[in-house]
Amino acid sequence: MAQAMQMLETHPWPGHVERETLARCIEECFACAQSCTACADACLGEENVADLRRCIRINLDCADVCVTTGRAVTRQTEPETAILRAFVEACAEACRACAEECERHATHHEHCRVCAEACRRCEDACRALLGSL
Amino acid sequence: MAQAMQMLETHPWPGHVERETLARCIEECFACAQSCTACADACLGEENVADLRRCIRINLDCADVCVTTGRAVTRQTEPETAILRAFVEACAEACRACAEECERHATHHEHCRVCAEACRRCEDACRALLGSL
Amino acid sequence: MAQAMQMLETHPWPGHVERETLARCIEECFACAQSCTACADACLGEENVADLRRCIRINLDCADVCVTTGRAVTRQTEPETAILRAFVEACAEACRACAEECERHATHHEHCRVCAEACRRCEDACRALLGSL
Amino acid sequence: MAQAMQMLETHPWPGHVERETLARCIEECFACAQSCTACADACLGEENVADLRRCIRINLDCADVCVTTGRAVTRQTEPETAILRAFVEACAEACRACAEECERHATHHEHCRVCAEACRRCEDACRALLGSL
Repeated sequence: MAQAMQMLETHPWPGHVERETLARCIEECFACAQSCTACADACLGEENVADLRRCIRINLDCADVCVTTGRAVTRQTEPETAILRAFVEACAEACRACAEECERHATHHEHCRVCAEACRRCEDACRALLGSL
Repeated sequence: MAQAMQMLETHPWPGHVERETLARCIEECFACAQSCTACADACLGEENVADLRRCIRINLDCADVCVTTGRAVTRQTEPETAILRAFVEACAEACRACAEECERHATHHEHCRVCAEACRRCEDACRALLGSL
Repeated sequence: MAQAMQMLETHPWPGHVERETLARCIEECFACAQSCTACADACLGEENVADLRRCIRINLDCADVCVTTGRAVTRQTEPETAILRAFVEACAEACRACAEECERHATHHEHCRVCAEACRRCEDACRALLGSL
Repeated sequence: MAQAMQMLETHPWPGHVERETLARCIEECFACAQSCTACADACLGEENVADLRRCIRINLDCADVCVTTGRAVTRQTEPETAILRAFVEACAEACRACAEECERHATHHEHCRVCAEACRRCEDACRALLGSL
């Protein structure tokens, strides 16, 4: 997703946030949206799907907020810090909860292990961005 | 959107939240997602689009968070209160900011007036739900 | 969702499509997005969740395309008929498949019965819109 | 977005589609969703925003269908080929139209040039996937 940084560099508005921090948050939000969508679906396909209800549900919530946040922090025109802060905090919270849940299944389900790592990277990237908003 | 309440009533899990409050929040989130999408597009079509950049941008953010929140509060299986609270707070914040911006253009653009009302209804419904989460 | 028609009436661009047909498609897309999200979640909460995998999966696909289509047909500025036609056809196809799947479980799960009806209404509204695009 | 292939490899269901083709479509859909969101916003920030209405509008449609399609093709459990085919065709159509529009502005706006390339890559990846569905 090299184009995220390119899109920031070619935007007509300068932006107030450190670009590396911002690009990382954008990339991790979209990556986490993908991995949570995939993990919810992989859990649904497991034999013990009934034990994975909580994991599926949090994955679906996390996937949705990651898309919303990834899109909102992509936008550089007329930024409204209060809104962005609320989105990025909600996203970090969902990523934390989703990582914790996936970690509980990581030894049995490799997709949960991979997804937990994506959630942790996204949580970190969100918290880093919160520090510079 | 009468089916939102029906879907709550036919869900296998009982739920801990007062159903009227929840159904209202679901309905207002989806309605606000629609009106913010429409208002961003109507502003884009106005002659003075350059004066409406901030309105368009906040409308797009608000539309996205309303879909995410409307879907998350629709889900009744294995609810995680910390995530839901963060989403509904972010949604209320976006609706408040979007209503304020739309209200500034309400005398010139009827679509901003209608959209501001939808945002205020959604903000109210989110705050009511926060009180019972 | 009375505001969908109001937003069409207050848009600065006249539009080429019969307004009642368009407003109905917008409303049914958002309603179906909600009911499919709810049905996927209700199926996930059922004891026989393992038998409902296909229903959950199609519900998730249908919910996503309904949001995308509901938003796209909401937009009246610079419409591109080829794109809209492709979206509305994809939405009708997903609604048809989701209705058929939900109907198979309608006698056992009331949420599937309610959701199938929402899918059929949305499929009809999409096909009616295709006739006037 | 290296995790897209990992998530495919760790999914409990084998899948009928060539994995490289699928992973590329998933990655390009999410990348294109990001670049179209960014291009719509960058166009909104340009001085000549009034000349970029069509570009903004198609970018918004394309961003939405790319998220929906990227999520749908990510799901491997109980795939329904007719739905997937309709989504991927709609996505390819939106990417083609968005690329053509962005290419018209590519000499004046670097973000349009970068976005057009992302749209072409996504269109290609969608057409390749259609060939193996």
